[in-house]
Amino acid sequence: MLSFECDYNIGAHPLVLQKLIETNMCPQPGYGEDEYTASAKQKIKAACGREGLDVHFLAGGTQTNRIVIDSMLHPVQGVIAATTGHVAAHEAGAIEASGHKVLCVPGHDGKVQADEVEALIKAFYKDASYTHMVFPGMLYISHPTEYGTLYTKAELTALSEVCRAYKIPLFVDGARLGYGLMSKQTDVTLGDLCDLCDVFYIGGTKVGALCGEAVVFTHSNTPAHFFTFIKQNGALLAKGRLIGAQFDALFTDDLYFKLGQNAIEMAEELKSICAAKGYKTYLDSPTNQQFFVLENDKCAELSKHVRFSEWERPDEQHTVIRLATSWGTTRQDLAALAEVL
Amino acid sequence: MLSFECDYNIGAHPLVLQKLIETNMCPQPGYGEDEYTASAKQKIKAACGREGLDVHFLAGGTQTNRIVIDSMLHPVQGVIAATTGHVAAHEAGAIEASGHKVLCVPGHDGKVQADEVEALIKAFYKDASYTHMVFPGMLYISHPTEYGTLYTKAELTALSEVCRAYKIPLFVDGARLGYGLMSKQTDVTLGDLCDLCDVFYIGGTKVGALCGEAVVFTHSNTPAHFFTFIKQNGALLAKGRLIGAQFDALFTDDLYFKLGQNAIEMAEELKSICAAKGYKTYLDSPTNQQFFVLENDKCAELSKHVRFSEWERPDEQHTVIRLATSWGTTRQDLAALAEVL
Amino acid sequence: MLSFECDYNIGAHPLVLQKLIETNMCPQPGYGEDEYTASAKQKIKAACGREGLDVHFLAGGTQTNRIVIDSMLHPVQGVIAATTGHVAAHEAGAIEASGHKVLCVPGHDGKVQADEVEALIKAFYKDASYTHMVFPGMLYISHPTEYGTLYTKAELTALSEVCRAYKIPLFVDGARLGYGLMSKQTDVTLGDLCDLCDVFYIGGTKVGALCGEAVVFTHSNTPAHFFTFIKQNGALLAKGRLIGAQFDALFTDDLYFKLGQNAIEMAEELKSICAAKGYKTYLDSPTNQQFFVLENDKCAELSKHVRFSEWERPDEQHTVIRLATSWGTTRQDLAALAEVL
Amino acid sequence: MLSFECDYNIGAHPLVLQKLIETNMCPQPGYGEDEYTASAKQKIKAACGREGLDVHFLAGGTQTNRIVIDSMLHPVQGVIAATTGHVAAHEAGAIEASGHKVLCVPGHDGKVQADEVEALIKAFYKDASYTHMVFPGMLYISHPTEYGTLYTKAELTALSEVCRAYKIPLFVDGARLGYGLMSKQTDVTLGDLCDLCDVFYIGGTKVGALCGEAVVFTHSNTPAHFFTFIKQNGALLAKGRLIGAQFDALFTDDLYFKLGQNAIEMAEELKSICAAKGYKTYLDSPTNQQFFVLENDKCAELSKHVRFSEWERPDEQHTVIRLATSWGTTRQDLAALAEVL
Repeated sequence: MLSFECDYNIGAHPLVLQKLIETNMCPQPGYGEDEYTASAKQKIKAACGREGLDVHFLAGGTQTNRIVIDSMLHPVQGVIAATTGHVAAHEAGAIEASGHKVLCVPGHDGKVQADEVEALIKAFYKDASYTHMVFPGMLYISHPTEYGTLYTKAELTALSEVCRAYKIPLFVDGARLGYGLMSKQTDVTLGDLCDLCDVFYIGGTKVGALCGEAVVFTHSNTPAHFFTFIKQNGALLAKGRLIGAQFDALFTDDLYFKLGQNAIEMAEELKSICAAKGYKTYLDSPTNQQFFVLENDKCAELSKHVRFSEWERPDEQHTVIRLATSWGTTRQDLAALAEVL
Repeated sequence: MLSFECDYNIGAHPLVLQKLIETNMCPQPGYGEDEYTASAKQKIKAACGREGLDVHFLAGGTQTNRIVIDSMLHPVQGVIAATTGHVAAHEAGAIEASGHKVLCVPGHDGKVQADEVEALIKAFYKDASYTHMVFPGMLYISHPTEYGTLYTKAELTALSEVCRAYKIPLFVDGARLGYGLMSKQTDVTLGDLCDLCDVFYIGGTKVGALCGEAVVFTHSNTPAHFFTFIKQNGALLAKGRLIGAQFDALFTDDLYFKLGQNAIEMAEELKSICAAKGYKTYLDSPTNQQFFVLENDKCAELSKHVRFSEWERPDEQHTVIRLATSWGTTRQDLAALAEVL
Repeated sequence: MLSFECDYNIGAHPLVLQKLIETNMCPQPGYGEDEYTASAKQKIKAACGREGLDVHFLAGGTQTNRIVIDSMLHPVQGVIAATTGHVAAHEAGAIEASGHKVLCVPGHDGKVQADEVEALIKAFYKDASYTHMVFPGMLYISHPTEYGTLYTKAELTALSEVCRAYKIPLFVDGARLGYGLMSKQTDVTLGDLCDLCDVFYIGGTKVGALCGEAVVFTHSNTPAHFFTFIKQNGALLAKGRLIGAQFDALFTDDLYFKLGQNAIEMAEELKSICAAKGYKTYLDSPTNQQFFVLENDKCAELSKHVRFSEWERPDEQHTVIRLATSWGTTRQDLAALAEVL
Repeated sequence: MLSFECDYNIGAHPLVLQKLIETNMCPQPGYGEDEYTASAKQKIKAACGREGLDVHFLAGGTQTNRIVIDSMLHPVQGVIAATTGHVAAHEAGAIEASGHKVLCVPGHDGKVQADEVEALIKAFYKDASYTHMVFPGMLYISHPTEYGTLYTKAELTALSEVCRAYKIPLFVDGARLGYGLMSKQTDVTLGDLCDLCDVFYIGGTKVGALCGEAVVFTHSNTPAHFFTFIKQNGALLAKGRLIGAQFDALFTDDLYFKLGQNAIEMAEELKSICAAKGYKTYLDSPTNQQFFVLENDKCAELSKHVRFSEWERPDEQHTVIRLATSWGTTRQDLAALAEVL
């Protein structure tokens, strides 16, 4: 059975695993005070190329979204997100469980538009009874989005300007950031994220690690008591080295970017293969998630040979499926897929 | 520098790491639906030797305590614990952050007494205004305790009887369970835990794993929606295999018990060495944590060569220190320690 | 200045106040154990004419919504509501602050449709990853709605059937229930509410009381520990008699219904006056809230003489305003309004 | 049956009720924007005689404690209180339900001692792992305490100095403040409270009102978004006038102080009567709550004629009872009591 259902279906990149093996028996302090974590933080800062960065490590995406958002919002504030945003739709109410409403704006292939974000904020303050309502307190976007799409630097800049005008932080969920940064169609760099947003995270779980996300506060703006807040939320690993060592490997010799690049190249090839076989693209994704519209019986047939995600049903006869490449996808995998298709 | 400060100072046991290496490139479903997790659950059930067990994996101790306790309590219920219990003292208010009071009974070398637990519950229901107070809704104990001590089977049975009489669950925090089960002074087995308590966890982080705790509900009593609740709390790993594979290794060929045994043997030897050097024992611990009372200047001198934990100050001139052995402690480590002492 | 901006602009009905005066110096137990509260509960049950009712008193609408919803939902469940529902829009995130997502369906003049509610629930369970999402756990509707509209008995029955099919409770926010029950266009009675929903409340604050809402659980289904939960939420009045005595008066000699009737009659007259003056109705409301579309300059002119609520702006030139009658509106008030218009 | 069981057993003082009657039919804006609320705030500020005061009204004591504490604490902070403090013992876990631990220091007849508060804070910061623990973030005291005792100005000053040294706010629960201010044995004034603490409340429910507490932030330090936070907690009354009008009456012509004085005078007389009858005082309370030790059979006998609170059982043969006077206690009540005793 071929496996294209997601980008977290195998373990860690061999060099990441190698780092865990090498460092395994060396005694280190717990809770992220180890030397690998310190080294990883330095390398991430260097890769960003900006001053004033604070880096923290957490284990997974929902955990990171919940902790970052809750730590930065006042209890009466909510977070603005696309209706299709991960925090709005697929985190089991983690944001609400921490007390905050998700304020939805339309998603356009997964992206939010600066004018619609601004309209929401303006409408809020124009409402005579706004003090009886949830304050827009942050903007959350994912980059790449849940649909594999990317913001241009101009779009990010426009969103950043809206956020700064209304003094709310801009938070970028980079669960798949490596695939976004290496897309052939992007003009957004790590440095741009540092300049334009207030906090973002560099996803590890989906880009070569067993677990782990690197949260970057961009202007020495780590919330007060953030370490203790992580502990209180059950998110502090006794062996913080587990994540530190992995990110140390990921940010050695540009491994993180090379992993991103592999997924992008494999995705380009996957697109070609599917196009050649007459598969219809559902939307044009420049990253590692590719969406196709299939007739239902073809979808059923395919599922006998390939694992993929069923995304949605545009009508009774068709299914949108997602095929994802990753850092670990190989040309052999694609050759086998071409065979099956 | 010798490292005896805790039992989470090195990585994973080589066989645990080996399992991660072997399984690394095999595609598997996410979120704990992988085959290693399934296998680990089976092996844990077999090791327990009881029917009706539900096993779930979480990443760390505070996370496990918070999620288990919150999932089993009504909002107006609190959890009874020793004043020295981990949930009462060292989890940054995780239990309160999830809405529940920790109701304290005295700790006797870390242990609670059945008569004192019952007295608390009785006093509660005798109070005319008890409906204005926090209901005792669960008993939490750690085994081994934070002081390395252990409950006897008779003591556990007495606690269990109090809990059953008042219809509240008994929860055993087994962060160091492997060391408790292999102590030379225990008569408590995994099967006894299944018989006597409602939920317990088998600690991995401190007993040979990089991370991971195995929660066991003992009579098909997993709370409703537990999977989604874990997700909502940010505790669901996309690569659930990371914990599943580690526990699969730990419960293959009795590895978990062998690791426990090593720590116990090393602790016995450490006790002998310290006794021979005239160190005064602070309390008699039958597991891997050993406590000694030192004069302050001796303590300062020792800290130049050995990493240990300062526990408390019984008076101005003395310090109680903790030296911990673990699954990874070797005879060489102890020889080096003997040298230094 | 004429006051038509809301239905909570004056104090209590004289008979309600009279009850407070009469009972003022009589010693009574606290926390709702007083005799007026007991009497009020009996009278409400009698007015409902059903068996198995539990009645509880709370102080206000948002408090009631938050406590009822939170007490009946599992942490991973959310409440379905119209996008215009009070819990979705105007309670400052009270529901989310208690941990629950509000799952929105479209509002049709404030009302939800059974088919759309069912579609939401069906889509949820059809989603392959629904265990990663917020479970639909309750349906919230307001009757009258925030737009003054009412459900027919057939519509309520359809909603009730959907809820029962999916085993989720139906909760009716009756902040203005008195005005709904006495509308000339309704076929819904208190008894119908008992039969069709699981919990509802009879609003006092907006229908003749200084404060107070009567929550009715319809089939002995008061959540466990509800009294203590109210206390924990800071919603238990030491002098519970304050609300009990008021509801005792409201349910003596059908006062509650007479107050509803007055507001309805005054609203009918207000409609006639406005129609005669050429005011355009925004939507057809059968209760005490009436909505008109005005040109902006006319709106500005009117605001010099009358207090009203600005509702929304359908376009740049027009404003929708709300004029509300209440239990206390008199023919003189309307005559003065007619003068001004 | 004579009623001495508490100080909230009757309604409102006639002048307070009179104010509600007089203002009843006058249209006013909702949510505390009415003129009575504005007037009450001014009068309270005048009575305090300090600049920079912010006054807010809430409905009851537990509600006030929960909202004030939660609004001023960071999530990882707890509130220090006496073990016998209301927030620690008798609020159904309201503080924990809002996420915060209550950090207990010993109660000495209900009072905390500055040296013990400082010792707790010092021990916290001296602990090497304090970032894994709940930060002491506020000091809560009640004045009068739950035992009727009072802090001297010197004691309050000492507590204030500790709080300022460690930059944590001092919060005074004044549910019975009127009785404390008018005690013959106090040297603490409203102005002193403004000078020495960061926030306190002036209790209405137990001192002449039907409901209501006046929260005073002493140096323009109302937490951000406090109004919306109140709404979110379900504590905002649509008819804020209900509390505003009552406090307006209470702070007209020193009524609040006169009510306090009545309770004190009646308590002095009650003490004399009981002493004359040979009742043994349990502790020396200078306010309206008086505690006596009775033999159990005498206690049972008394309960046939008088309602009182059973407080605790010092031994098998005796019961401590509380007899409370209030603003409404009369000489006739005491004469009747003397008769019975």
